[in-house]
Amino acid sequence: MRPEPNLDIAHLGHLELLTPKPEESLRFFVEVFGLTESGREGDSVYLRGWDDYEHHSLKLTASSQPGLGHIGLRARSQQALERRIEALRGSGYGIGWNEGDMGHGPAFVCQDPDGHKIELYYDTQWYVAPPELRPALKNQAQRFPARGISARRLDHLNCFAADIRANRLFVERYLGLRPTEQIVLDDGTEAAAWMSATNKSCDLAYTQDRSGAAGRLHHLAYALDSWEEVLRAADIYLENGVYIEVGPHKHAIQQTFFLYAYEPGGNRVKLANEGARLLLAPDWKPIIWTEEERKKGQAWGLKTTESFHTYGTPPIPPGSQKTDVVQPSWVVG
Amino acid sequence: MRPEPNLDIAHLGHLELLTPKPEESLRFFVEVFGLTESGREGDSVYLRGWDDYEHHSLKLTASSQPGLGHIGLRARSQQALERRIEALRGSGYGIGWNEGDMGHGPAFVCQDPDGHKIELYYDTQWYVAPPELRPALKNQAQRFPARGISARRLDHLNCFAADIRANRLFVERYLGLRPTEQIVLDDGTEAAAWMSATNKSCDLAYTQDRSGAAGRLHHLAYALDSWEEVLRAADIYLENGVYIEVGPHKHAIQQTFFLYAYEPGGNRVKLANEGARLLLAPDWKPIIWTEEERKKGQAWGLKTTESFHTYGTPPIPPGSQKTDVVQPSWVVG
Amino acid sequence: MRPEPNLDIAHLGHLELLTPKPEESLRFFVEVFGLTESGREGDSVYLRGWDDYEHHSLKLTASSQPGLGHIGLRARSQQALERRIEALRGSGYGIGWNEGDMGHGPAFVCQDPDGHKIELYYDTQWYVAPPELRPALKNQAQRFPARGISARRLDHLNCFAADIRANRLFVERYLGLRPTEQIVLDDGTEAAAWMSATNKSCDLAYTQDRSGAAGRLHHLAYALDSWEEVLRAADIYLENGVYIEVGPHKHAIQQTFFLYAYEPGGNRVKLANEGARLLLAPDWKPIIWTEEERKKGQAWGLKTTESFHTYGTPPIPPGSQKTDVVQPSWVVG
Amino acid sequence: MRPEPNLDIAHLGHLELLTPKPEESLRFFVEVFGLTESGREGDSVYLRGWDDYEHHSLKLTASSQPGLGHIGLRARSQQALERRIEALRGSGYGIGWNEGDMGHGPAFVCQDPDGHKIELYYDTQWYVAPPELRPALKNQAQRFPARGISARRLDHLNCFAADIRANRLFVERYLGLRPTEQIVLDDGTEAAAWMSATNKSCDLAYTQDRSGAAGRLHHLAYALDSWEEVLRAADIYLENGVYIEVGPHKHAIQQTFFLYAYEPGGNRVKLANEGARLLLAPDWKPIIWTEEERKKGQAWGLKTTESFHTYGTPPIPPGSQKTDVVQPSWVVG
Repeated sequence: MRPEPNLDIAHLGHLELLTPKPEESLRFFVEVFGLTESGREGDSVYLRGWDDYEHHSLKLTASSQPGLGHIGLRARSQQALERRIEALRGSGYGIGWNEGDMGHGPAFVCQDPDGHKIELYYDTQWYVAPPELRPALKNQAQRFPARGISARRLDHLNCFAADIRANRLFVERYLGLRPTEQIVLDDGTEAAAWMSATNKSCDLAYTQDRSGAAGRLHHLAYALDSWEEVLRAADIYLENGVYIEVGPHKHAIQQTFFLYAYEPGGNRVKLANEGARLLLAPDWKPIIWTEEERKKGQAWGLKTTESFHTYGTPPIPPGSQKTDVVQPSWVVG
Repeated sequence: MRPEPNLDIAHLGHLELLTPKPEESLRFFVEVFGLTESGREGDSVYLRGWDDYEHHSLKLTASSQPGLGHIGLRARSQQALERRIEALRGSGYGIGWNEGDMGHGPAFVCQDPDGHKIELYYDTQWYVAPPELRPALKNQAQRFPARGISARRLDHLNCFAADIRANRLFVERYLGLRPTEQIVLDDGTEAAAWMSATNKSCDLAYTQDRSGAAGRLHHLAYALDSWEEVLRAADIYLENGVYIEVGPHKHAIQQTFFLYAYEPGGNRVKLANEGARLLLAPDWKPIIWTEEERKKGQAWGLKTTESFHTYGTPPIPPGSQKTDVVQPSWVVG
Repeated sequence: MRPEPNLDIAHLGHLELLTPKPEESLRFFVEVFGLTESGREGDSVYLRGWDDYEHHSLKLTASSQPGLGHIGLRARSQQALERRIEALRGSGYGIGWNEGDMGHGPAFVCQDPDGHKIELYYDTQWYVAPPELRPALKNQAQRFPARGISARRLDHLNCFAADIRANRLFVERYLGLRPTEQIVLDDGTEAAAWMSATNKSCDLAYTQDRSGAAGRLHHLAYALDSWEEVLRAADIYLENGVYIEVGPHKHAIQQTFFLYAYEPGGNRVKLANEGARLLLAPDWKPIIWTEEERKKGQAWGLKTTESFHTYGTPPIPPGSQKTDVVQPSWVVG
Repeated sequence: MRPEPNLDIAHLGHLELLTPKPEESLRFFVEVFGLTESGREGDSVYLRGWDDYEHHSLKLTASSQPGLGHIGLRARSQQALERRIEALRGSGYGIGWNEGDMGHGPAFVCQDPDGHKIELYYDTQWYVAPPELRPALKNQAQRFPARGISARRLDHLNCFAADIRANRLFVERYLGLRPTEQIVLDDGTEAAAWMSATNKSCDLAYTQDRSGAAGRLHHLAYALDSWEEVLRAADIYLENGVYIEVGPHKHAIQQTFFLYAYEPGGNRVKLANEGARLLLAPDWKPIIWTEEERKKGQAWGLKTTESFHTYGTPPIPPGSQKTDVVQPSWVVG
């Protein structure tokens, strides 16, 4: 009998996003993206989608550079959290406990091999809507805003990383997320990995970063209810002068219907819908995409733009990028 | 610390549905519902949605009466399956192993307090599409049929039961599914329960059966990708003379966008979409609906028809129904 | 050869709606319905959908009672307008010129046999969006608001009338709109008529009013882009406490996907989508629905509520309604 | 007063499409596109969308080369048809009467300056569905097929032409269609024109052909009900190995949500949805797009592929194309 899967991480809980243009980014996330502010502290504003059950899913923090502050993963239980900490002991990836943050209790901090900071926590504050945001249906966290894109809930994030295999193995072995799809080059190098803690096809993904930088963000993603809402979001971006990098279109990988844009701080944000697609199999075998297969482009044939495969946050200063690198155009699915 | 949840059941795998009109039912499920036949044996035809990963999700069996043959729940692992069998030992609900069926290995059979037969199994056959049904994208089980409604995958089922609390506790304690929403009457009686093994809000539900009968089916449900697909399905039912009982409309409970109809054998079939709604919280607290709240009708105010609260399969012969029963109109969400 | 159709009326241009709760109605139309204010004068506020090309499509006027102020029909040309005035001469339905209104030039006023006031005009002011409402695409009148329901454009209105045949003939003979669908009772009485000046299936409809009152409004309708937008509008109504009378569902007549609600002033407002349905045939023969056919309910079987067939604005004071009238439930499609 | 518009042409009625692979093309249009065969004669098969009211909207004819056989425009009345013939007298564009075809009576044939053959007719045969295709709702021409893409109705066609201005003026002056949008280059050359006879934004369009050839087809278009149906069509193309050239995406021009593919015979076919967009203004002023504006790409930023601007049917034999031509990438909207 094969060993049982570790299900200790329940889901992606929140992200901290860094922005050099905090006011413009805030306006974007509230007015265009349709998130709701649920708190402020220091240089940070806490934001949430109307269907996020925790206090917040996005912590927006002013910074000199755009990029990822940290990733928050919620454990399935206090015991599960402790098992993960125990697993990390002596691995060299554990950093230690912090005091928690607005909306959740103390978290154990670790980092992946590429240096992305990950906070593991269980104790969290369920969102209670103030009267003016109280929903009509009691099984909903917050009233539907009907403002801008009205993004529903945090769905996943995608991190750039120099060594995909190392990061994939870290997440798999120490945290317990399972790879659902991967890109493996002809020479055996892993070029991308999508990892899941849930029945969703992706909570955390890695894409090969050939720039020589570390700890960068490729994109964060919020879920919408339908293909049509993603298309409407493109209209709303158009009307608001938001730069659309690629999409709307459908990825062959994960079959996600996507729309990528840049928020004012420079971070790439994605809107995504996968219809009713769920990975229910407890023994799902990762789908491996080859170079040949990736050359076909996205599901309906779209070729993505160059920037989609090289741009991340923080961006690489001109002149500092590794010069011998040619990023193939098929790496990100 | 509260005890950790039991996650041993991975998901609802398949159903056996009984029909007194096997040819008409088969035509309905293939031509109108858009399922694909994946096998035949004896009086049964095995059917599947294009996104079901196992051999089949519906076993359609000729019988003198419509109703439910059995429920197939797939365990998360062989070890998990054995833990469930161990838990059932001495409970009085366990029946014993069978030899398995087309598409999956031996299953352990038990029954819930209302007498619905449940098969627990782990060993399963992943569907491999024949050449003419091979999908364009390798992360998909089968080609999208574009025939009739093109139902995507089995989503959940709802069983009538005399004693909701007893059945809810059975499923919770012995199988490990968690209640996500419930109806509790003013006198404390539980009138309905929705139970989940996944991030979906429901894999198996119970609705109060006041007829005096046992082991009846309220409905089975397949998932579609969008609200619009559910509406289009109503058009397809209309063109095919299929009786629409109620919908399309949105349930307040679970916020499912639904369409209920009767297949030719008399069983109630549902098409459902919940947008991107998932229950990600590992410590989700069941939503309890009161009588007062249920009187508001469905989400947008629709009052369901009387039959929706009393009709199940097998149907009750005229004259045999308990006569002192008045089924309130708000019981089923 | 049959005589050529008269195409002198181009389309429904605007409506004047009366409301006893002007502030609440205004808030509803702007915040919930998503219209934009384009002017104010006296007791009136002028409103528009983002795709309406004229100055406004709704003139909201404070009044002691809800109801219809007037209907504005735009002629195809100045010559066409004059032909209509000439046709009305001596008919007893013409009233005379007025001085025009904000947004359009002088109009010729007439009334239908039931007393609804109709203004015919050609000279109009094309809407020019102020900078903050300027659209990204130059073939669009105004920026997409992404606020509330974001209603697109005025689509049609439906007037209650005591004598459908008389009103239908008036509109057909004097104005030139063509009947596209009708309900004719078994005794030959016309119970409803849908009239069109365009490729849409309806610009102006009449529904039998058995109350004894005259000049009442059944509903006004704005167009949305898709079935899904109509469903989302129902969610937005739910969150805003707006009373949903019936829907969303699909009419058998015209196959319109509809949602009926009451704005705070008491007037019935409809949101509608017909997919890509257009009546392109220049010699379209009206579809006649019989009593028998109407008993089937709406397209997917919904039975409409009683109020849908009797309530109009201004409402009938209790006690004053004709008491010998039983309104059959199938009259309005 | 400006002269009144000529409304003598009611709408685009049908097209004759030539194909060198008649069997494969027929299979595509029936099984993938979802049209229904309504007749056969000689080398032609007659096809229709489920919402086309006439006998057919597509005549598919075997030929050595792909391309356009003829365009069928239905006049608004017999008188209107005669006025158009009278207008064409002495113009050099009129050819003369033919005997009609399956589904319609005698037609007057003319050709535009680029040599596309246009048949004008009024007498037509309304489609009467055989029992197995009879719709549930009597206001619908034919049962919804629920097969493949289930294309709804013929929407428009786009012809390549060497001299856009000449063709636009021909259609405007002799036939009476109005230009709704145009591309005009910086040197004043017209590069594209969209013409309408209806409230749709386009019945017949012209795109500049710099190849030196004449009478070529750019694409034909069928209407679908929603953005989502266009996306689903892309999935169906993918599963059936149909070449997708560009899309799904939204045109800036006309705001059409589009999907372009090649049918097996080599002709470009488009699926289109414009939401509830209609041009209701009787005095609509054509939108003029400049070179600068067209460089922005499609509505959400997509750059179309080179072939989209040069490929038409019949295709240009290698070596015969004018060599001094560089087709700018922004010409087709």
